[in-house]
Amino acid sequence: MSVQGNMFIGGRAVHGTNGRIQGFDPKINEKLEPSFGLATCEDADEACVLAAGAFQLFRKTSASQRADLLRLIADNIMALGDTLIERGMKETGLPAARLEGERARTANQLRLFADVIQDGSWQDVRIDTALPDRQPLPRPFLGVRKIPLGPVVVFGSSNFPLAFSVAGGDTASALAAGCPVIVKGHSAHPGVSELIGRCIVDALAELNFHPGTFSLVFGSGNEIGQHLVSHPEIKAVGFTGSQSGGTALMSLAQQREEPIPVYAEMSSINPVVFMPASLAAQTASLAEQFYASLMMGAGQFCTNPGLVIALKSDALTHFKQHMSKLMEGNCAGSMLTPSIFSSYCENKSALINSPEVNLITQGHSEGHNACEPAFVEVEASDFIKDRALHREVFGSFSMLVVCNSEQEALDVLGSLEGQLTGTIHYSENDDQTFAQQLIDTMELKVGRILFNGFPTGVEVSTAMVHGGPYPSTSNSQTTSVGSMAIERFVRPVCYQNVPNTLLPPEIKPNNPLSIPRHIDGEPEKR
Amino acid sequence: MSVQGNMFIGGRAVHGTNGRIQGFDPKINEKLEPSFGLATCEDADEACVLAAGAFQLFRKTSASQRADLLRLIADNIMALGDTLIERGMKETGLPAARLEGERARTANQLRLFADVIQDGSWQDVRIDTALPDRQPLPRPFLGVRKIPLGPVVVFGSSNFPLAFSVAGGDTASALAAGCPVIVKGHSAHPGVSELIGRCIVDALAELNFHPGTFSLVFGSGNEIGQHLVSHPEIKAVGFTGSQSGGTALMSLAQQREEPIPVYAEMSSINPVVFMPASLAAQTASLAEQFYASLMMGAGQFCTNPGLVIALKSDALTHFKQHMSKLMEGNCAGSMLTPSIFSSYCENKSALINSPEVNLITQGHSEGHNACEPAFVEVEASDFIKDRALHREVFGSFSMLVVCNSEQEALDVLGSLEGQLTGTIHYSENDDQTFAQQLIDTMELKVGRILFNGFPTGVEVSTAMVHGGPYPSTSNSQTTSVGSMAIERFVRPVCYQNVPNTLLPPEIKPNNPLSIPRHIDGEPEKR
Repeated sequence: MSVQGNMFIGGRAVHGTNGRIQGFDPKINEKLEPSFGLATCEDADEACVLAAGAFQLFRKTSASQRADLLRLIADNIMALGDTLIERGMKETGLPAARLEGERARTANQLRLFADVIQDGSWQDVRIDTALPDRQPLPRPFLGVRKIPLGPVVVFGSSNFPLAFSVAGGDTASALAAGCPVIVKGHSAHPGVSELIGRCIVDALAELNFHPGTFSLVFGSGNEIGQHLVSHPEIKAVGFTGSQSGGTALMSLAQQREEPIPVYAEMSSINPVVFMPASLAAQTASLAEQFYASLMMGAGQFCTNPGLVIALKSDALTHFKQHMSKLMEGNCAGSMLTPSIFSSYCENKSALINSPEVNLITQGHSEGHNACEPAFVEVEASDFIKDRALHREVFGSFSMLVVCNSEQEALDVLGSLEGQLTGTIHYSENDDQTFAQQLIDTMELKVGRILFNGFPTGVEVSTAMVHGGPYPSTSNSQTTSVGSMAIERFVRPVCYQNVPNTLLPPEIKPNNPLSIPRHIDGEPEKR
Repeated sequence: MSVQGNMFIGGRAVHGTNGRIQGFDPKINEKLEPSFGLATCEDADEACVLAAGAFQLFRKTSASQRADLLRLIADNIMALGDTLIERGMKETGLPAARLEGERARTANQLRLFADVIQDGSWQDVRIDTALPDRQPLPRPFLGVRKIPLGPVVVFGSSNFPLAFSVAGGDTASALAAGCPVIVKGHSAHPGVSELIGRCIVDALAELNFHPGTFSLVFGSGNEIGQHLVSHPEIKAVGFTGSQSGGTALMSLAQQREEPIPVYAEMSSINPVVFMPASLAAQTASLAEQFYASLMMGAGQFCTNPGLVIALKSDALTHFKQHMSKLMEGNCAGSMLTPSIFSSYCENKSALINSPEVNLITQGHSEGHNACEPAFVEVEASDFIKDRALHREVFGSFSMLVVCNSEQEALDVLGSLEGQLTGTIHYSENDDQTFAQQLIDTMELKVGRILFNGFPTGVEVSTAMVHGGPYPSTSNSQTTSVGSMAIERFVRPVCYQNVPNTLLPPEIKPNNPLSIPRHIDGEPEKR
């Protein structure tokens, strides 16, 4: 399979006619062949209408049928072999090992959702049995299951060309739920997008699904994305990207005649607290681990540790010295695109040039679009006062907030906007009451609290929350990673006194699908 | 206990100073004593700040503590005895039996949520055990539980002075979740609101909860409600009322610096389909049941059967004749307020005077603010074309849509906006394929499908969905009635590698709360 420069509209490979883009190798600053044609609004409309038609069939497929589809997509992706990795390296500047790891994660994610829907507990089926003799009124039979919302638009992200893109977590969970998907492919990796899109199109064809179940379109600027989100057949949106992009979609989706949910994962600076004893006991090791987390992928992660909170101490002075030694002269590698690189430089400079900010250390920039990492510091009182210091710098940049007391550290946490993660480094010699206060404060600010690690690295599993209060996401009540992500794309429907022959199988009294259910509030014996 | 004309701000009885309102007896068209002082924005701010303070404690109370609170509120409401019913009859014009039934439902609803939180499965606790030896990377320990969002503003509805008002479903589910509540009391029943508010305030005091856990304010117009929804300490909104009111709150909540979820239950015309054999076999009985559902409470229900869909037939002609006989000369009783009555008259007239609409029958208006019921008909093709015919008329009004074919009936359903309920009257002699098509079409339009009954009467239980696609609610993924309603006010937080001593009890490995959990995707043995 090779890259042709095509989109897919309901199974049909299409070379768009609304201008063109090309992939770009950020390491050598050169465009990649071939060029990709961009979608017209008519192309987008066609994808939406096809998705609406496909939805009528797709929503009635069984969990096993959709599980087969997800597993075949995973197999097709793995079967692309080096073609995918090589194109990915060119389009992103990321090393092979990172892309191979991300590919495994993407395939496992598809297989996880296959398992999730076959298990059936995601439907949260509940039955209240009829009580015909109840006084003063009989109780009817009631059963509730989850049904898919309808066609979903997914915006591929720049920083995870596989795991948060064409067949990433949003697509996997939406397809698992029974929602057709239209992906707006990210222009930073059109070739990878086409290769992955082909895997989905082929899997749908092989298993005889309606071709409208999936489309992939490209567009420059915001026009096509906005057109898709505004289309009346679209019932939900998944997005991973900037706060400005996410909030624009949120507001567009609310202005529709029928408002729809937007699940946007946006910005986060991911506070990391070093508690005193923990920092003192392992200063050098923590500096090394923190440095590794900060430099990984040139810091282009939503979970990059962009904020460090610590009390003034000798250990903290040593930590800064270690960091300087580690970072000096080192480059974090080329960034994903020239525009991400220039934003990084601009945002970093603005912070470094703030009067309250001192530069602790910075690295070195080597080659095209290469991220010069930086670690800066600021006093807690200044940080709390100046919201401009809270902004995310997407890349290998982090800010140390130096606190004079435990209370000041809590106040710094309390001053933050919503975040995806919060990290605490703690040892048994640290004050447990302070640790508890840190957790209490973090709970109200983040979706995931982690101890003695770093926030980069997001497990795809049943208990993961990759979400958090606004503006880290648009909806703190959901996650975009892990099996709970499917809940974003379903809604409950209750069936009251529906005759047995007409009941959906999930709710039939004899439980023909043998799925976990609750009857009158108690787990059903199976 | 008697009605004093007070609000409650964090436990303190306050006579507002920002103008005044009085209760009003719609049956005799007279104001009721005493007058109620209205809240200033400063009063509202004080309630919000108190709620934020209370939240820090309330969110850490145990499920058993909050269950005790909910049960004591229920007991206090029952202990009001006739004082409540008598005041309610005056303020609403509703009969004693209806208010007694609603009181029982309200108390049972509070007790249901007490049971729900003590059971613990609402937290959907999931644990992924650590896999330290996994290759290429170890898996950390991950556990997720639900935490409350924060202070919630609840707007009492006019039509359920108890079950959807001060201590109604929104308040019960928010308190159950651990969220302090500020109720904006409905001006249609300030006396009932004060009596119920006092039950909550007293229960909080008796059980030593922070008084900021609950406030009740009154305000005229939209100022106080908007001020509350805009306050940065407020984290979610529950609303039952008109579409214009609900959408205004949705848009206000989205424009905040931190957007928050609005759970608004708005308008619905609740289609009822009579399938041919069912209608033919029991024409008179169906007319009687339909008439009873339509006339109940002067049709002032979100689930009022405002739309009937049937195929042209002799049975349908007989059905209309029966309806005429039943309705002629009868009055549906006084409506809740003069303004609901005048809206009813205005909206009914607009539809009756539409050129496509024929009046089948109408009743009689007798006394003050008394609802003159009406049943009208329209051709399916006209109904599909003219969206103005789809509007809700709040009261005992219903529109028959006459169809020439099964397909036309499906098209009528397909043309509707989102609805709370859809009803199908079906007998074994009806076409099962057509019944299945009706279900398939309804599933995409409603939150609850019911057979051989009428949509008024909403069971408060584990499987109920009182929700549906926009504009019946602002969020089709939730319900405002039944135990799932608690999910609106919580969000997941994941704990990764948190030491055992610092883990919340829900996630501690030994399951000290003995709640249902999933470990590595499987139900935990208990």
